[in-house]
Amino acid sequence: MSQGKSDRGSETRELILVTAERLFAEHGVEAVSNRQVSEAAGQSNNFAVGYHFGSKEELVVAIVRRHSESVERRRAEMLAEIAGSPDLRDWMSCLVRPTTEHLASLGSPSWYARFIAQVTTHPSWRERVSKEVGSSRALQQIIESVFQLVPRLPEDVRQDRGNMSRLLIAHMCAERERALHEGTAPPRSTWESTAAGLVDALVGLWLAPVSARR
Amino acid sequence: MSQGKSDRGSETRELILVTAERLFAEHGVEAVSNRQVSEAAGQSNNFAVGYHFGSKEELVVAIVRRHSESVERRRAEMLAEIAGSPDLRDWMSCLVRPTTEHLASLGSPSWYARFIAQVTTHPSWRERVSKEVGSSRALQQIIESVFQLVPRLPEDVRQDRGNMSRLLIAHMCAERERALHEGTAPPRSTWESTAAGLVDALVGLWLAPVSARR
Repeated sequence: MSQGKSDRGSETRELILVTAERLFAEHGVEAVSNRQVSEAAGQSNNFAVGYHFGSKEELVVAIVRRHSESVERRRAEMLAEIAGSPDLRDWMSCLVRPTTEHLASLGSPSWYARFIAQVTTHPSWRERVSKEVGSSRALQQIIESVFQLVPRLPEDVRQDRGNMSRLLIAHMCAERERALHEGTAPPRSTWESTAAGLVDALVGLWLAPVSARR
Repeated sequence: MSQGKSDRGSETRELILVTAERLFAEHGVEAVSNRQVSEAAGQSNNFAVGYHFGSKEELVVAIVRRHSESVERRRAEMLAEIAGSPDLRDWMSCLVRPTTEHLASLGSPSWYARFIAQVTTHPSWRERVSKEVGSSRALQQIIESVFQLVPRLPEDVRQDRGNMSRLLIAHMCAERERALHEGTAPPRSTWESTAAGLVDALVGLWLAPVSARR
């Protein structure tokens, strides 16, 4: 393939990814056909999604990867900075900020926070996308370090609070992104103050005493 | 209308509601047509959903109402029991347990927790369903009382933590319901221990100090 043709191919791929993400966030992944994505991306070939991505599932995964690479890079950098820190706040920051900083870098309107909240809650996409996002090595290292910082918590409570942290970050970011886009005032004025609020809350959540078990 | 005919009508309505809730939780609300719901509910008339509910939106709202009446009743009872309590834990329990106890009462498999998490995250259903759920008088009273118990928190932090509480309860219940149904071990063994874990975490979240504002 000549260089020019390959460039055009990768431009088309990028255009389809951006268009699909917006349409999925606006209308729901199920409600938008591959044909509608191709048309909205200005492709004369209605099968452009099929040609470039195969299936809708692969398109969904490609949208996730487009962002998760950037989030993962930030996370690895932050992780290197706080290595060995005994301060739970540093680790919560490392859970929260790679995502909020990535979202801030997208400008407004962004669509990714709503897209990812939707697909991780949807029966048809949840498993595939969770596998993609959960495969982050940096994320696993953070969770292991957090577990070591709260040695007195029973194993099931640690697991539970790990799940709570993930859900809280994903859905708070989605609600903020929606509020920004719809022009309804979100409680926090910036992504940085959103991050600060999440870090405070998560530190409290992880340090909360465990009430007597029945 | 004769009594017998009216009874049959209300039985059919109930059958459609139960069937639709399961299909929506299994496949996604968008992916299931009104016709498929009618057929799966054993209706010879393919327009049974239209006849009994009007539109899919009205069907979605009717599913929510079928459960929210029971949740609201429990919440009003708990609210009466703890009226005036100065203990934040009581109020968190009143936020969490009406939902977890309702879900426990449904037996397994239940579908409602996954259904509600999905529709409140979906661009097409979110607003209508949030309005329905948010109209709870008891819930508003709880939130107001919680706000009074944390007088030093800035207004935006209170709003933020109120949103966090709502999202945490909804999505943790959905994940537990899914894990129960799929036979993958959820961290907590019972709905009651799930509730206890949520109450502990939420107390920590609300009492967390607010870091210096930038």
